[in-house]
Amino acid sequence: MAAFTTPIPEKTIERLSEYRRTLIACHRRGITHVFSHILAGIHGITAVQVRRDLMLIGFSSDTKKGYDVKVLIDFIDSILYSENTMKVAVMGMGHLGQAITKYFNSKQLNIRITTAFDVDEAKVGQTIMDIPCYHINDFEEVVEENDISIVIISLPSSLASQYTVPIINAGIKGVLNFTSAPLNFPQGIVVENYDITTILEKVAYFVKAAEENNNNQ
Amino acid sequence: MAAFTTPIPEKTIERLSEYRRTLIACHRRGITHVFSHILAGIHGITAVQVRRDLMLIGFSSDTKKGYDVKVLIDFIDSILYSENTMKVAVMGMGHLGQAITKYFNSKQLNIRITTAFDVDEAKVGQTIMDIPCYHINDFEEVVEENDISIVIISLPSSLASQYTVPIINAGIKGVLNFTSAPLNFPQGIVVENYDITTILEKVAYFVKAAEENNNNQ
Repeated sequence: MAAFTTPIPEKTIERLSEYRRTLIACHRRGITHVFSHILAGIHGITAVQVRRDLMLIGFSSDTKKGYDVKVLIDFIDSILYSENTMKVAVMGMGHLGQAITKYFNSKQLNIRITTAFDVDEAKVGQTIMDIPCYHINDFEEVVEENDISIVIISLPSSLASQYTVPIINAGIKGVLNFTSAPLNFPQGIVVENYDITTILEKVAYFVKAAEENNNNQ
Repeated sequence: MAAFTTPIPEKTIERLSEYRRTLIACHRRGITHVFSHILAGIHGITAVQVRRDLMLIGFSSDTKKGYDVKVLIDFIDSILYSENTMKVAVMGMGHLGQAITKYFNSKQLNIRITTAFDVDEAKVGQTIMDIPCYHINDFEEVVEENDISIVIISLPSSLASQYTVPIINAGIKGVLNFTSAPLNFPQGIVVENYDITTILEKVAYFVKAAEENNNNQ
């Protein structure tokens, strides 16, 4: 639907996804219109930023009553989502894989986690969090048969690198890597490294830096 | 130990945390020295970036053999970590909270998840993933008694906002928010919003954009 061929900046995409969830919450409560400064306040940013993001996707129907909530949701949907549901596989169905599957599939999105993979014989062949779990050795075959385009890697970090080749061979287009192993993929595959340890260490560092600054004052 | 009063940029902190893990893996394999371009290659960035990051923290002992792995690990530790272990609480001990606790505490870090909170009576009073689980209503008291400075929020999104006041009152300094509810805290509290849905939607968008570009060519 969207007429854009140049991808929109990453940060704008993140914020659109966040605005969308807030707008859906508004819509559920019967709120029909919302001003840019209200959206901005909820997300801790400026109204200028909100307006700039929406201008960037070509949305400009700001009225005296603010943005029409339903119209804006549909517009963001047309930017973020394919017309067809995008299918996602999870590699590694431990606590993290299960948490991600449950959390993600409980949302009403045009992206679904449909298939799991693991090495644990107790999990293979079972239905876990409502999706079938296959042996990781069958990854390429199952991905191709099921038209899966994105994989979430929630394996132990030490195992992750051995599955980069099957991921490439299977024709996967996007990777969300939760391990702390940096994974390299050829150009054309979108990779997002999302290591929890790094983020927690970052928070800890800024807490420490703030404390040291206080002590020095 | 570190003599910095101005915080180092966020992205540099993230990369330092990532370099550190790579260096530890090198150290375990008996590798004593590593060149900046090797570190750069593993992390998919340029050698200039690596050298700039290390210069920023005042590390400059690059020799003909490359960086001394052990010395660099200790140096990064002195920047990232307090001398005392930093204590972290998890709010919400469902699949995600358990996964984070298990994953994080299995690493050798100077930051520990020591305490869990939940509303589920079946969990309260139990030891889960080797840490005690308290009722969330006792959050302020338990946090103060146990000198906890960071909280990870892995509650259902709909519950998260009602705990911002207890978090502030308890004197928490850093928040890692895994819910999709944007949470506002006063200045002085470090907040990192880390919503899985947003990241997966971002990957999906760039996969879609790449496909559309291919179709247009």
